Amino acid sequence: MHEDGESRARIGEIQTEHGKITTPVFMPVGTKATVKAILPEQLKEIGAQIILGNTYHLYLQPGPKLIEEFGGLHKFMNWDGPILTDSGGFQVFSLGIGMAEGLGKMTNYFPGEDTRTEVQKYVPKKKLAKIDDDGVTFYSHIDHSRHRFTPESSIKIQEQLGADIILAFDECTSYSADHAYTKNALARTHSWAKRCIAAHCTKQALFGIIQGGTFKDLREESAEFISKLPFDGLCIGGSLGRTKKEMHDLLDWTVPMLPKDKPRHLLGIAGFDDLLECTERGMDMFDCVSPTRNARSGLVYISPESGGSRQNKWRFRIQNTPFRNDHKPIDPACDCYVCRNYSRAYIHHLFRANELLAYNLTSYHNLYFMHRFVDSIRESIKDGSFLELKKFWLS
Amino acid sequence: MHEDGESRARIGEIQTEHGKITTPVFMPVGTKATVKAILPEQLKEIGAQIILGNTYHLYLQPGPKLIEEFGGLHKFMNWDGPILTDSGGFQVFSLGIGMAEGLGKMTNYFPGEDTRTEVQKYVPKKKLAKIDDDGVTFYSHIDHSRHRFTPESSIKIQEQLGADIILAFDECTSYSADHAYTKNALARTHSWAKRCIAAHCTKQALFGIIQGGTFKDLREESAEFISKLPFDGLCIGGSLGRTKKEMHDLLDWTVPMLPKDKPRHLLGIAGFDDLLECTERGMDMFDCVSPTRNARSGLVYISPESGGSRQNKWRFRIQNTPFRNDHKPIDPACDCYVCRNYSRAYIHHLFRANELLAYNLTSYHNLYFMHRFVDSIRESIKDGSFLELKKFWLS
Repeated sequence: MHEDGESRARIGEIQTEHGKITTPVFMPVGTKATVKAILPEQLKEIGAQIILGNTYHLYLQPGPKLIEEFGGLHKFMNWDGPILTDSGGFQVFSLGIGMAEGLGKMTNYFPGEDTRTEVQKYVPKKKLAKIDDDGVTFYSHIDHSRHRFTPESSIKIQEQLGADIILAFDECTSYSADHAYTKNALARTHSWAKRCIAAHCTKQALFGIIQGGTFKDLREESAEFISKLPFDGLCIGGSLGRTKKEMHDLLDWTVPMLPKDKPRHLLGIAGFDDLLECTERGMDMFDCVSPTRNARSGLVYISPESGGSRQNKWRFRIQNTPFRNDHKPIDPACDCYVCRNYSRAYIHHLFRANELLAYNLTSYHNLYFMHRFVDSIRESIKDGSFLELKKFWLS
Repeated sequence: MHEDGESRARIGEIQTEHGKITTPVFMPVGTKATVKAILPEQLKEIGAQIILGNTYHLYLQPGPKLIEEFGGLHKFMNWDGPILTDSGGFQVFSLGIGMAEGLGKMTNYFPGEDTRTEVQKYVPKKKLAKIDDDGVTFYSHIDHSRHRFTPESSIKIQEQLGADIILAFDECTSYSADHAYTKNALARTHSWAKRCIAAHCTKQALFGIIQGGTFKDLREESAEFISKLPFDGLCIGGSLGRTKKEMHDLLDWTVPMLPKDKPRHLLGIAGFDDLLECTERGMDMFDCVSPTRNARSGLVYISPESGGSRQNKWRFRIQNTPFRNDHKPIDPACDCYVCRNYSRAYIHHLFRANELLAYNLTSYHNLYFMHRFVDSIRESIKDGSFLELKKFWLS
């Protein structure tokens, strides 16, 4: 492990059966056994070190038994690199209280934008999940059939899926939950953490999840409790606050309490500013649907060299009229396959003409861009210029 | 040129600035400057020798001037192989009488199937085009704006698009048109053919189009007339009859009248049986949207070795329940990228989960399959086993 002299930023390595991961790392999300619109070979080209699958979605469709029969997720989807699956716990939140209140993970980050999850967008807003101390009963967002997850069943399903890294089943509370509710939920998450460890019987790495909402005492309690259990890595999960400051505070309280020798995964967060701020605060692993989801809506990433900034969120919308006749690649400073071969005008045309190739090209660029960005973070930690890099992006 | 001993089947070569084409050849259709859902590099892998672009669509979106500014279609879409553009003439038909009557090229071929073109499906059924002796006035299917094509403007647009092979502007009549109407339309097509030659001033190869509906005298008249003009190649176009027999008759009348040294393109037809029957009758070039359109609807091709037959049209629907748990590749006899790496069950899952990767994988397979099929036709002509190959597929 290599640590930055001036911050908590660090470089680390995770060894898995499907290869080595160097952190900090960004994980593309392959919710339903595919990183949307992208071929596995393209992920390799892009330099993806590990991808993330969603247990809730894969459990419902096509089902863990089927995936197990096909030799696990790796073989089923033709990806031989490392995979991490989540536990389904976040869906407890998004189908339950999140659904009822129309909440995402951090609703206030981008005012005016719809930050609800896909599940929330396409399902009537009523609670689809009910939590008790033993587990969660929920209704499928596909056909409203009734299902139940417990810590034991989540671990069992994740074993069937066969990812290299699996997560403990937790309850993800809303930032609108009060201290009393969050304390109660945290007790459940802790009891479930122990049950996950007891149920876990494979070689898969098992990561624990720290919850506690935005309450300092609860986050600290959770950091201490989860750190002491024999997990292979630690996640910081849950609703991470109403503002970025709340999220940073939460990391400032929690991360110093974590053992140095275990990887730390910040669940579901990966804006460019977030990656810088949270790497600085000692986080190692990041995942988010944003590069691919943005891509499919025509939002493409540009570097500070090409005009990307905090104001435009390092992106622009390729369907907009100014790009109709633009000879430049998406990002003139980018050397990806898409930027080497296609103009903004061509990709603009593909979107306007509803051509499927649009989604592949923009997803490729955004993922490539994100991976080179994280590469540059690692390089900067190595050569002691991390804070300079941060300043370059955020100023 | 190599001819089959027992039929009119033949092997030929076409030299273009972007490479050599060996015929018989199948051309994937890239209507709007992209072969739907497929990367140009994948087309190369598949062995595509030439692709087809549609002048009508490209004229409306993004426009020939823009494509010209970008160095032509090849550079705009990142395809450095040969390209052929049609003249927009077929849209005269499909937006005009075809639209009014809900007709495709050959409606009776597959009873129960909707064979209308995309344009016909998505636009209210009224005539969107009006033909006069000078040209065609039509309304855009996108925004109903008014436009006009003449032989001269079609050639000009195709020059701007910059394909290697361009087509003369013709009037494509419906099989429901009577002898009198068709004779009149044919006179127009012949006069337009001469105007296209007069307007043509680039190095692009210019192909003429033989029309005449299903009337023997008119097809013969057209074959004679068009053959005598200094075209670089000859297309057989128009409504090719109500039945396959009518199409075969039409080729039997026409092809023997054509000069042997010019390539012959059968416009828009490329079923497996069609390719065999029409190659046997002396045709060299084929194009059709069917491999990619079928792919996007989940219809995937299988060889006779794997159960493909005239009855199932050498295809099956991957979304169907029996394939949910099928470990086999789409076609166990196929060695394409998709069949080497993915199960039917995985692709079934992608379709059921509405995942974009589905369209890429099935389009890849269908195009690869079609290209190997045409390879096998060429091989069989070379070694004198063409009729055996035909029997193997059609029996």
